[in-house]
Amino acid sequence: MPTDVPDVSGISIGILGGTGDQGKGLARRFALAGHTVLIGSRSAERAQEAAAALGGPVRGADNASVAAEADVVIVAIPWDGHRSTLESLRAELSGKIVIDCVNPLGFDKQGAYALPVEEGSAAQQAAAVLPDSRVVAAFHHVSAVLLLDPEVAEIDLDVLVLGEDREATDIVRGLAGRIPGVRGVYGGRLRNAHQVEALTANLISINRRYKAHAGLRLTDI
Amino acid sequence: MPTDVPDVSGISIGILGGTGDQGKGLARRFALAGHTVLIGSRSAERAQEAAAALGGPVRGADNASVAAEADVVIVAIPWDGHRSTLESLRAELSGKIVIDCVNPLGFDKQGAYALPVEEGSAAQQAAAVLPDSRVVAAFHHVSAVLLLDPEVAEIDLDVLVLGEDREATDIVRGLAGRIPGVRGVYGGRLRNAHQVEALTANLISINRRYKAHAGLRLTDI
Repeated sequence: MPTDVPDVSGISIGILGGTGDQGKGLARRFALAGHTVLIGSRSAERAQEAAAALGGPVRGADNASVAAEADVVIVAIPWDGHRSTLESLRAELSGKIVIDCVNPLGFDKQGAYALPVEEGSAAQQAAAVLPDSRVVAAFHHVSAVLLLDPEVAEIDLDVLVLGEDREATDIVRGLAGRIPGVRGVYGGRLRNAHQVEALTANLISINRRYKAHAGLRLTDI
Repeated sequence: MPTDVPDVSGISIGILGGTGDQGKGLARRFALAGHTVLIGSRSAERAQEAAAALGGPVRGADNASVAAEADVVIVAIPWDGHRSTLESLRAELSGKIVIDCVNPLGFDKQGAYALPVEEGSAAQQAAAVLPDSRVVAAFHHVSAVLLLDPEVAEIDLDVLVLGEDREATDIVRGLAGRIPGVRGVYGGRLRNAHQVEALTANLISINRRYKAHAGLRLTDI
């Protein structure tokens, strides 16, 4: 596989919804990799608490401050509230790479299933709401449990990175590679983001059946 | 990973649409594994020609004869014609395990994309059309090029196997494992088949970018 990713070591990373497990887990791993990490939340106080709990160079602030300050912003908020939160941050996110890792899923007794999304996918909704941002879809399948586990040094996972903008997807591939064991792999355009988001439901079924934290690897690349 | 699959070595396999590359490739590999393989086509003559070209224990016949005779039937027909072909074979497929590997995809200048399916997925359409069959979704991501390449001894791939019927999905997992290198992994219920089918569009994008024949592996199982 080509190692054609730019140097991303100096990039600061903001995480909207950074007080959730996925957000905290990504914050932890990017801080360990030496990045400045800003955790965002609707409540600055809760963001600061989450940042303090992670320790190191992680800071917390309200979502708008984080969106304004960080070089690259990861959207790790719940699907319920995805559109309205992004709408409220349009100005702050203008011109930035916005990484959407939200999986619109429903749950019932039989497990998880994909929710229909008017725009096709969470990532496409973000792109529609944020026409002046560079929206990339990535980090859908990474296990929050593994990200947060101090016993787990490396994560055996390819992160599929989708987007229209080659430079932006290359930067995000580089960021994925900052987590030990993880490889960032270009995965197509945003119109093909739905199935990547929805596949998380299958991974949940697989985890239940095999008692695992399953991830994906792409073969032959 | 548990090796809890039944002995499937005596199962005969019919392949509807067996004259296409995917069908021929699967026929070749199952014949190499010692299975009786029946290639089906709308034209018995073309099926017989394809079978003769593959050689070995592969026979060809019209789709209805193959559906009636084989123990397990793989649906490898084009998406255009999927519903009508299955409707015409309802009686022959009654009571049988029917493996749907059809990917409803469109293609344009930007590559492949998932087509909307009224029932949610090709596999769910098959289940709706064939209420008396045991429909399983599998073999979506296996490369026809690799299946047909005599230089390729092993295929580095996990086949996701989806369905409602545990015994049927276990048998299909066993059949996947008859191809050297391939592992059959339970992948969820049919309501989560759409994204597995649609992910083929992403694999096509990946193949184009990395000049590969990419497949999936599940980690941690």
